[in-house]
Amino acid sequence: MTLVEQVNQKRRGRRAAGEDTRSALIAAAREVFVEKGYDGATVRAIAAKAGVDAAMVNHWFGGKEGLFGQAVLQLPFDPAEVLKRLLDGPAEDAGERIIRTFVTVWDASGGGTFAALIRSVTSHQEVAKALKSFFVNAIFKNVLAAFGADQLELRATLCATQMVGLGIVRYVVQFEPLASVDADTVVKAIGPNLQRYLTGDLG
Amino acid sequence: MTLVEQVNQKRRGRRAAGEDTRSALIAAAREVFVEKGYDGATVRAIAAKAGVDAAMVNHWFGGKEGLFGQAVLQLPFDPAEVLKRLLDGPAEDAGERIIRTFVTVWDASGGGTFAALIRSVTSHQEVAKALKSFFVNAIFKNVLAAFGADQLELRATLCATQMVGLGIVRYVVQFEPLASVDADTVVKAIGPNLQRYLTGDLG
Repeated sequence: MTLVEQVNQKRRGRRAAGEDTRSALIAAAREVFVEKGYDGATVRAIAAKAGVDAAMVNHWFGGKEGLFGQAVLQLPFDPAEVLKRLLDGPAEDAGERIIRTFVTVWDASGGGTFAALIRSVTSHQEVAKALKSFFVNAIFKNVLAAFGADQLELRATLCATQMVGLGIVRYVVQFEPLASVDADTVVKAIGPNLQRYLTGDLG
Repeated sequence: MTLVEQVNQKRRGRRAAGEDTRSALIAAAREVFVEKGYDGATVRAIAAKAGVDAAMVNHWFGGKEGLFGQAVLQLPFDPAEVLKRLLDGPAEDAGERIIRTFVTVWDASGGGTFAALIRSVTSHQEVAKALKSFFVNAIFKNVLAAFGADQLELRATLCATQMVGLGIVRYVVQFEPLASVDADTVVKAIGPNLQRYLTGDLG
């Protein structure tokens, strides 16, 4: 299934056997992640609170990152799947690859979920903290380490400035022309800037 | 008076003769800018609604940009003053100069006003539209035109992605280490990226 198909499936919603297990895990995850933070929360504690087997987390969410992404951030895609795609190619194209993935998934969700994410993050300090440890530890440190970069944490937060800013300008405040230009234009304009944050000289 | 002194004066608040005129102009400006947008609002219409002479806008706010910045965006500085500083130097250093000015003024305000700005912009579509025409038409088009850049509107919105993202990561969600590193580190890390959006090849 492509990322866009995944997004569309999420938007339609799904009802299936086990849906109660999934809902219970999401409710438990929201409580535990907010209370303990991303790093402090364990899959075992979340499953125990939901009253289900810990294996159900892998079954429904592919692991802790996926559960966090869906329960707390309500991401319209699976972060582990995205991470796999980001690592699948040479380091020198990673900036463009990350921007293309980001724009593809958020364009497919109509951008509305990005706006909800920003409202949640900017009004709840605990969500912001959990997002940071998720974003830095589960996603960007892996990308940067795979590419042999130094100053991992500074680079990860610099990448965050560009991607959060792109999301807000394209999807939330919708400044033209950037809100409407095609994905290729965004990738060519912003990809090289992200690349500098990933592997370039920071001065 | 330096920008930081201006910011500190605003934070302490001031009470002086004519303060009623200033308050009336701010209240009228909020209504007119939101109703007509930044470009459609006139100084004459705002002064008429406030029941004061139009010359008072220049006296208290230095013009339409300053009134918009203080009434609607509640900026802790005078945009005309900032614009003057941005244009005061060679084009090839503009990226670093803009980032240094941005970080200096928001650091001095404690970042709290940036968080309020973001909440206002992300929850009110009219404020977002007014901010865009203000940001693009009153600030960035002037900078870009002075530097002889092409694709003014696309470049202005690309600059917006970087600056909004920096503000959110440093002041709102406060991701470390970027929230705490000194201004020089921010300028060296981000200045060259902004420079590419101002005068570089966009691909």
